[in-house]
Amino acid sequence: MSNLDIQRTGILFVISAPSGAGKTTLISSLRQKPDFVYSVSCTTRSPRPGEVDGEDYHFLSEEDFKTHIEAGDFLEYAEVHGHHYGTLKSTVVSQLEHGIDVLLDVDTLGAASIRQCPDGFIQDALADVFIMPPGLDELSRRLRKRGTESEDQIATRLRNAASEMEKWREYRYTLISGSMEEDIEKFRAIMRAERYLSHRLHLSF
Amino acid sequence: MSNLDIQRTGILFVISAPSGAGKTTLISSLRQKPDFVYSVSCTTRSPRPGEVDGEDYHFLSEEDFKTHIEAGDFLEYAEVHGHHYGTLKSTVVSQLEHGIDVLLDVDTLGAASIRQCPDGFIQDALADVFIMPPGLDELSRRLRKRGTESEDQIATRLRNAASEMEKWREYRYTLISGSMEEDIEKFRAIMRAERYLSHRLHLSF
Repeated sequence: MSNLDIQRTGILFVISAPSGAGKTTLISSLRQKPDFVYSVSCTTRSPRPGEVDGEDYHFLSEEDFKTHIEAGDFLEYAEVHGHHYGTLKSTVVSQLEHGIDVLLDVDTLGAASIRQCPDGFIQDALADVFIMPPGLDELSRRLRKRGTESEDQIATRLRNAASEMEKWREYRYTLISGSMEEDIEKFRAIMRAERYLSHRLHLSF
Repeated sequence: MSNLDIQRTGILFVISAPSGAGKTTLISSLRQKPDFVYSVSCTTRSPRPGEVDGEDYHFLSEEDFKTHIEAGDFLEYAEVHGHHYGTLKSTVVSQLEHGIDVLLDVDTLGAASIRQCPDGFIQDALADVFIMPPGLDELSRRLRKRGTESEDQIATRLRNAASEMEKWREYRYTLISGSMEEDIEKFRAIMRAERYLSHRLHLSF
């Protein structure tokens, strides 16, 4: 007649989106009321104005990045727009083992690498979400509004976006981007529901 | 450069809980702001005070119920506490085919039958949720508070509840019952998240 004892393992929330789909703003908002740990990726690209080392990214030299690759330290890594991006396995696994959820922002190549990770623990923990822009027109509008890139860079991003958008089926969830408030609410619903999946729970009574 | 065209098939939300876990109140609350169709089950038990035929249940005679069984009309049917309960397949399938979500209240035997249904369409649509009472003590308190049954009937329900609670692992989701408001919010989160599952979506752009 005792009360219920509830335990669960951590969930690895992976989020991908084409540039301009609103992912960065979504993640910033989620991080303001975190019930998860945000996994800070490593990158060899230069910080943009306002970006903080260790908070937005771990900014690494090409040399340091390659050392980690050779040591097999990365859960995923990829080259995008001429720069390396990667996630250190150790950081992610130690959180999940303690029942702490991890949010990880990776591109479609990074997500594909994680899906191919042979570690069953990672596969059980994984919940991947693709943020789908409401259309290429709207995406183009959002990229121009941001105003941080040249027309050439925007054209490249739109081409990449179109091919990334084809990957939505590979993700467990596809969130059609609306207003920022809607996106946050939808993503929060996914996070909550994933926590009620029976296979993640250990109950005794 | 067109906008996104989004379509999806209906989801069959199946909800089970031991008596007293708060399922009836939860379903009533959900039905006040429905974005789904509630599947009214058939039963051979007598209506309780206040129950309306065609709204709470389709109240059938034993003879009519058996005719439906023989015709293979039921998605699931079972005998509980000496009465028959069942769900007509035709009602559920026609809604799902039109992209309408269906909420179905069945016991653990009914849910098990649906899981064993060989129809792939039903299996793809299925999202089953077990409402877990926070403990047998609390369940006992809730049953007594309801005051509609004798101590003998309550004792029977508690025995059944204990064995039903063992079935939580068979459900995709297990929702630990808290306050009614919490339960509604949790169930709504599951409903929303299920709608973003990529395998349910048909997108073209």
